[in-house]
Amino acid sequence: MTSFADLTLREIRRDLHRHPEAGWKEFRTTALVAEELDALGFDLSLGPDAVNVAERLGVPDDDDIAAARERAKREGAPEEYLEYMDDVTGLVAEKRYGDGPTVGVRVDIDALERSEAMDDDHRPAREGFASTHPGEMHACGHDGHTAIGVGVARAFDEEGFDGTLKLFFQPAEEGGRGGKPMSETDHLDDVDALFALHLGLDEETGTIVGGYDRPLSNAKIDVTFEGEPAHAGGAPQEGRNALQAMSTAIQNLYAIPRHADGMTRINVGRVSADNAQNVICEEARMRVEVRGGDADLNDYMMAKAERVLKHAADMHEVDYETSLYGMTTTFENDQSMVDAVMAAAEEVDDVNQVCGRSPFGGSEDASFLIRKVQENGGVASYIGVGASNPAGHHTAYFDVEEESLDIAVDVVTESIRRVAGDLR
Amino acid sequence: MTSFADLTLREIRRDLHRHPEAGWKEFRTTALVAEELDALGFDLSLGPDAVNVAERLGVPDDDDIAAARERAKREGAPEEYLEYMDDVTGLVAEKRYGDGPTVGVRVDIDALERSEAMDDDHRPAREGFASTHPGEMHACGHDGHTAIGVGVARAFDEEGFDGTLKLFFQPAEEGGRGGKPMSETDHLDDVDALFALHLGLDEETGTIVGGYDRPLSNAKIDVTFEGEPAHAGGAPQEGRNALQAMSTAIQNLYAIPRHADGMTRINVGRVSADNAQNVICEEARMRVEVRGGDADLNDYMMAKAERVLKHAADMHEVDYETSLYGMTTTFENDQSMVDAVMAAAEEVDDVNQVCGRSPFGGSEDASFLIRKVQENGGVASYIGVGASNPAGHHTAYFDVEEESLDIAVDVVTESIRRVAGDLR
Amino acid sequence: MTSFADLTLREIRRDLHRHPEAGWKEFRTTALVAEELDALGFDLSLGPDAVNVAERLGVPDDDDIAAARERAKREGAPEEYLEYMDDVTGLVAEKRYGDGPTVGVRVDIDALERSEAMDDDHRPAREGFASTHPGEMHACGHDGHTAIGVGVARAFDEEGFDGTLKLFFQPAEEGGRGGKPMSETDHLDDVDALFALHLGLDEETGTIVGGYDRPLSNAKIDVTFEGEPAHAGGAPQEGRNALQAMSTAIQNLYAIPRHADGMTRINVGRVSADNAQNVICEEARMRVEVRGGDADLNDYMMAKAERVLKHAADMHEVDYETSLYGMTTTFENDQSMVDAVMAAAEEVDDVNQVCGRSPFGGSEDASFLIRKVQENGGVASYIGVGASNPAGHHTAYFDVEEESLDIAVDVVTESIRRVAGDLR
Amino acid sequence: MTSFADLTLREIRRDLHRHPEAGWKEFRTTALVAEELDALGFDLSLGPDAVNVAERLGVPDDDDIAAARERAKREGAPEEYLEYMDDVTGLVAEKRYGDGPTVGVRVDIDALERSEAMDDDHRPAREGFASTHPGEMHACGHDGHTAIGVGVARAFDEEGFDGTLKLFFQPAEEGGRGGKPMSETDHLDDVDALFALHLGLDEETGTIVGGYDRPLSNAKIDVTFEGEPAHAGGAPQEGRNALQAMSTAIQNLYAIPRHADGMTRINVGRVSADNAQNVICEEARMRVEVRGGDADLNDYMMAKAERVLKHAADMHEVDYETSLYGMTTTFENDQSMVDAVMAAAEEVDDVNQVCGRSPFGGSEDASFLIRKVQENGGVASYIGVGASNPAGHHTAYFDVEEESLDIAVDVVTESIRRVAGDLR
Repeated sequence: MTSFADLTLREIRRDLHRHPEAGWKEFRTTALVAEELDALGFDLSLGPDAVNVAERLGVPDDDDIAAARERAKREGAPEEYLEYMDDVTGLVAEKRYGDGPTVGVRVDIDALERSEAMDDDHRPAREGFASTHPGEMHACGHDGHTAIGVGVARAFDEEGFDGTLKLFFQPAEEGGRGGKPMSETDHLDDVDALFALHLGLDEETGTIVGGYDRPLSNAKIDVTFEGEPAHAGGAPQEGRNALQAMSTAIQNLYAIPRHADGMTRINVGRVSADNAQNVICEEARMRVEVRGGDADLNDYMMAKAERVLKHAADMHEVDYETSLYGMTTTFENDQSMVDAVMAAAEEVDDVNQVCGRSPFGGSEDASFLIRKVQENGGVASYIGVGASNPAGHHTAYFDVEEESLDIAVDVVTESIRRVAGDLR
Repeated sequence: MTSFADLTLREIRRDLHRHPEAGWKEFRTTALVAEELDALGFDLSLGPDAVNVAERLGVPDDDDIAAARERAKREGAPEEYLEYMDDVTGLVAEKRYGDGPTVGVRVDIDALERSEAMDDDHRPAREGFASTHPGEMHACGHDGHTAIGVGVARAFDEEGFDGTLKLFFQPAEEGGRGGKPMSETDHLDDVDALFALHLGLDEETGTIVGGYDRPLSNAKIDVTFEGEPAHAGGAPQEGRNALQAMSTAIQNLYAIPRHADGMTRINVGRVSADNAQNVICEEARMRVEVRGGDADLNDYMMAKAERVLKHAADMHEVDYETSLYGMTTTFENDQSMVDAVMAAAEEVDDVNQVCGRSPFGGSEDASFLIRKVQENGGVASYIGVGASNPAGHHTAYFDVEEESLDIAVDVVTESIRRVAGDLR
Repeated sequence: MTSFADLTLREIRRDLHRHPEAGWKEFRTTALVAEELDALGFDLSLGPDAVNVAERLGVPDDDDIAAARERAKREGAPEEYLEYMDDVTGLVAEKRYGDGPTVGVRVDIDALERSEAMDDDHRPAREGFASTHPGEMHACGHDGHTAIGVGVARAFDEEGFDGTLKLFFQPAEEGGRGGKPMSETDHLDDVDALFALHLGLDEETGTIVGGYDRPLSNAKIDVTFEGEPAHAGGAPQEGRNALQAMSTAIQNLYAIPRHADGMTRINVGRVSADNAQNVICEEARMRVEVRGGDADLNDYMMAKAERVLKHAADMHEVDYETSLYGMTTTFENDQSMVDAVMAAAEEVDDVNQVCGRSPFGGSEDASFLIRKVQENGGVASYIGVGASNPAGHHTAYFDVEEESLDIAVDVVTESIRRVAGDLR
Repeated sequence: MTSFADLTLREIRRDLHRHPEAGWKEFRTTALVAEELDALGFDLSLGPDAVNVAERLGVPDDDDIAAARERAKREGAPEEYLEYMDDVTGLVAEKRYGDGPTVGVRVDIDALERSEAMDDDHRPAREGFASTHPGEMHACGHDGHTAIGVGVARAFDEEGFDGTLKLFFQPAEEGGRGGKPMSETDHLDDVDALFALHLGLDEETGTIVGGYDRPLSNAKIDVTFEGEPAHAGGAPQEGRNALQAMSTAIQNLYAIPRHADGMTRINVGRVSADNAQNVICEEARMRVEVRGGDADLNDYMMAKAERVLKHAADMHEVDYETSLYGMTTTFENDQSMVDAVMAAAEEVDDVNQVCGRSPFGGSEDASFLIRKVQENGGVASYIGVGASNPAGHHTAYFDVEEESLDIAVDVVTESIRRVAGDLR
């Protein structure tokens, strides 16, 4: 039986790093965090109460989820919380310290589906806390984010602040699968200010970015074409060829016109069709991603892609289905929040560089939580916390300097106090 | 003013060879034949009375037709008949000789759109009767067919036969444009037996084929894609690209599945889109031909092609229109007619080889007239008349030996007498 | 430890039916047959001595082969012969009875990769000899063919004939993978006459077809496109997209022009590419099959396909490799052999219908052995043996009436005696 | 016989507007300007001496050029200069006023291939100076540019300046066809400073832009695919289908990967193939344009496009040829020149707004002349002169306010004086 109770943030981060759990499989992570926050007096909403179950995107097969849950149990996840979660991960935890505003902090908790470097050039390997789950790795710093979430809870345990704290431990950020379903609950309805944060992003430890703006919008869809098999030699005319439909679609997806208003992208990833050479293909599947410099451009690409898919299928008398695998949108930070973060950062000892707003570059599904808060009249900022990452995000050698964990907790708690005061 | 009155069949054929008229432009040909048959006592149905005007296929522009009509007038076409014809060519001529059955003879009268060889290796050039119309040439023997039609009328002028003769001088056989509209009149309703014929087909003069069977079915369609222009640099997303639609269509047309039941073909011929390089293409046009070993296979190809066109257009948000340029169907000869032709041929002096039924190989829109007669309970055969053509059909050096003209008249008239007797 | 020694042909067939082994996995089948023929005094060439190892097509992974060999051992294959075979299946067995000609009999021994029906409508299930190997089934009668091969050896054991008998137990006929490598040995060099045979083919038990002619030629190739990955959002221009190459290839493969000389086919079966949606595809794989009504048409399709593959790859700066998965060619039987079979069949009591030559329809890699014999001046025929199969070949309910086994042995042995006499 | 001698700039502009000459057809324009500058004492290099004849791009057919030359003669072009020009247009004129630096002024002189609005809403129509050449129109202000070139020569006629003036009257700017061949002569070798300018660009009369920077790079190529015809029904396998090659190319051209470094574009404009429906296409032609936000991006697109073309052709066993129709590159102005222009503009009475540097947006082949001067160590700027154009460039209603002509001359001459002084 594991417990975070006696562990430092660094130790928590390392424990999570050794036990990475990919999207919608974060049973051990959720349960251990829940146990810790429970002890700290938070009200907990777990799994089915933390996300809108019906709106989840890119959910793995039932078998995969069940196996992940079993693994979590085996690896010391407290069973009480596993039972509450049923087969859904994620956690919203709330604690009232004073009459002031409700301030949220969102951290993401999932790992990537990739293997970790195991040689001595890589500190996690050298120091014995590399992933013990082949094919899963915390290669984007979410282990640190989770630890920071715990750290913020601990930090307010003694003095609190004049308001209510709501911590959002979001599952399945990779692929943009968990942000939307977590935003489609009522947990954000009373949030006056929301902070999200990211470690690393190629900044040195000690650097704070007041607000990353305008992440790219994207959408990922899974497509299945369903035709009719036929013997390719004996009766080619009787087939309805799902593969011809898919190939026509691929050719035309890449040829969607560029847009003068900004950046657009499209890509087709996983492709499969699994019939014999002498059978007209009856089923073909693919994964598609579109991106846009903003939400309109993303919508443009998605609308064009859907038209291509529909008519490539119809052209070959083939049925098709699409399902959304994941998506992100974009946002702009509120200047008041950026100002609060920058002012807070100036107060933190180990911070030696404070930057203003900066474009985000990548995609991020905190965007859905941030927009929900802003639509309700609240304010938000997405903070950058430098962590001297020695290798790029998502690579086998990604790591973060752990001094960044305490810096992040200090910047976030100080920002919360300031914002709570401002909003009073 | 020209007249066929004093001309031999050979002279008529040479006059027509010098004045070839492509499909729907056969004003001079029709008018001169009409004048001759009028003199022989036939009842005439000309132009709008000879074909179903609304059903004509592949009709040239009004300007082209008007110019052809003017040319015919200039080149001696008797005006009386030109007036009757208005702007439509073709002729059905009928004469009753006795109480017996009605027997039809169909000949086609149009020239090809190609230029003729003008060197001395080519008899029409050497002997001064090559085409005087650049870009038009009787390269398929229809000049001879027309003369034979006149010859049959002349042959019965003295003795007649026990029945009614109906001569069908069909326009626009090339491209399969005139057969269908001539079949969609009531002229065939009372025809008990129909003969059609073709000179040449690589057989020697003196050879008669009792019946060519199962010509290929085909259909030709003209397609126009209509999109929306846009500046390719400044606003590519605002275009609706007719050229992308057309290219997608072409790729998929050639990829229509082969059919296990027999031969299928598809081809795209003329293609055009005429905008500047920096403008998203707003209009693109193409000509498509499908073929099938039989009518079902042709229908299979056409249905598949239409599906491809529709969804290639829809995929690119482009409108499209198709119009039928021409079509042919297939038929089987009636054995009784083939037998009659073979028996008749044995009686004709200059015939030295009589063959039975043979597959046709190419396409022929007499098919529509033949099927109409057969659907009404009548019988039909498509006769081959060898003419020692020195070069392939449709080539610049095509020619026929003119001895074949009298042979054809003798075989046809003798066949008619036999059939009229049989059917009594 | 299993042994065929005391089993009837029917029992042998049922034992094999219960233990089906797919192509290149026929370890148990080969070993049991070898043991039986060894006891009958045949000289044996097993595995690496029976086929040209380097020329084998469509060989499974080493692991799969090793597992199949282990299974054979577990299921009673005599180890002595397994050891000789190493990791290659197949057997050529030879026995001299007299000074006369060498006569070959080729039977194929592999099962299909498909599951068998397990309900009582299916005799093998009802009577307890259905496949015990999920995913493998003798659904094409090769279990019977193998038993017939043993039966012929037994039949000559008492009286022999005036010549030498060579039995070819060929692996991996399904997919056309074993015929070519077995033909590329010297075992066929001294064969004066070769018989191959097939049970079923929708003929009733008691029917013999003297010779199936002109099977279709086909070729199956596996294609791998190797490009370069890149982040689809961050650096799309740095990728070399294996999937765009493959899609371009597929579109153009299906659009290879039809051929006027006869039937051609092309199909793409299994397709896969397995990268994330946000990564430009670095590797894509597919399986392609071409067919032709004859070997030239097959070569036409293959040459066109190779050109398409090469330039689709080059267009996208992608490398590609092809490997031949399997192939068949075509042949014509020798009339003398067909005559011998028909005369022999007339002598066999349970034969009640004897047919002459008939087109084969499908594909068959005995073609390579037959052509090799014919090229060396020998003669060959491919015999059909009716077996009242209740369901089509390759379906889950395929079965053969076992009376056909003895009929086949009688027809083959009588044919051999006749041919041996004729050729003396 | 026309002459500019007694005409004001406004009258010259209107005369040119009535007689627009598209690229490489500017015989009348060149000859009349030559006559005027000759009278003003300039040394003239005409036609073959003004541009590198072999490097001309997008040159019309010989017949079209000859017709344009005839038209020029008919419409009053002085023959002496026509003779010098032979069949090449363009003019470089030089005059030495003092020892100071050599300063160049480049103006473009060609019209667009489009028709002009002829209704009274359009001043040229209303006031009687609309185009008398159907299908040609000065819809981009080059008539004004030419007049300004003459105006600068006249302005220095009295006082001169301390240096040498070189006027470049460049043909065929539309399509980017004349800039490159004019830059590939030695006329620019001694130019110390070069001004180019453009009227309109949606700025009001009285506005001067000191320097338009970074026009887009583009390249336009004409592509011809040459295959082999064959009868689509009788021998489809014998064709080498130029249209399949072109369609494959088009599909893949539009699918060239987007580039993360900036804007890229591709478009296919005019497309043609002109064969019958039943003939496999032997020749297909198209026009392609690529663009890039900078020269590297343009090169990226061109390299990708060439690869697509090559392998689309090879895939279908088709030959292909490309020829460059036109191209532009990009540049940055020299700040010293921008400063000089801005300072000069401040001095000119009718100038009421002076702007600094601004991105160009479109493409411009003055880029080649500017880069040549800069590569030789000289300086350059591309000046914008507002002209309250009532309708967009290249539209049927484009016009310029003619007050802008004198403003332009004043700004340019004052700029030249300043630069000549600075460079001394």
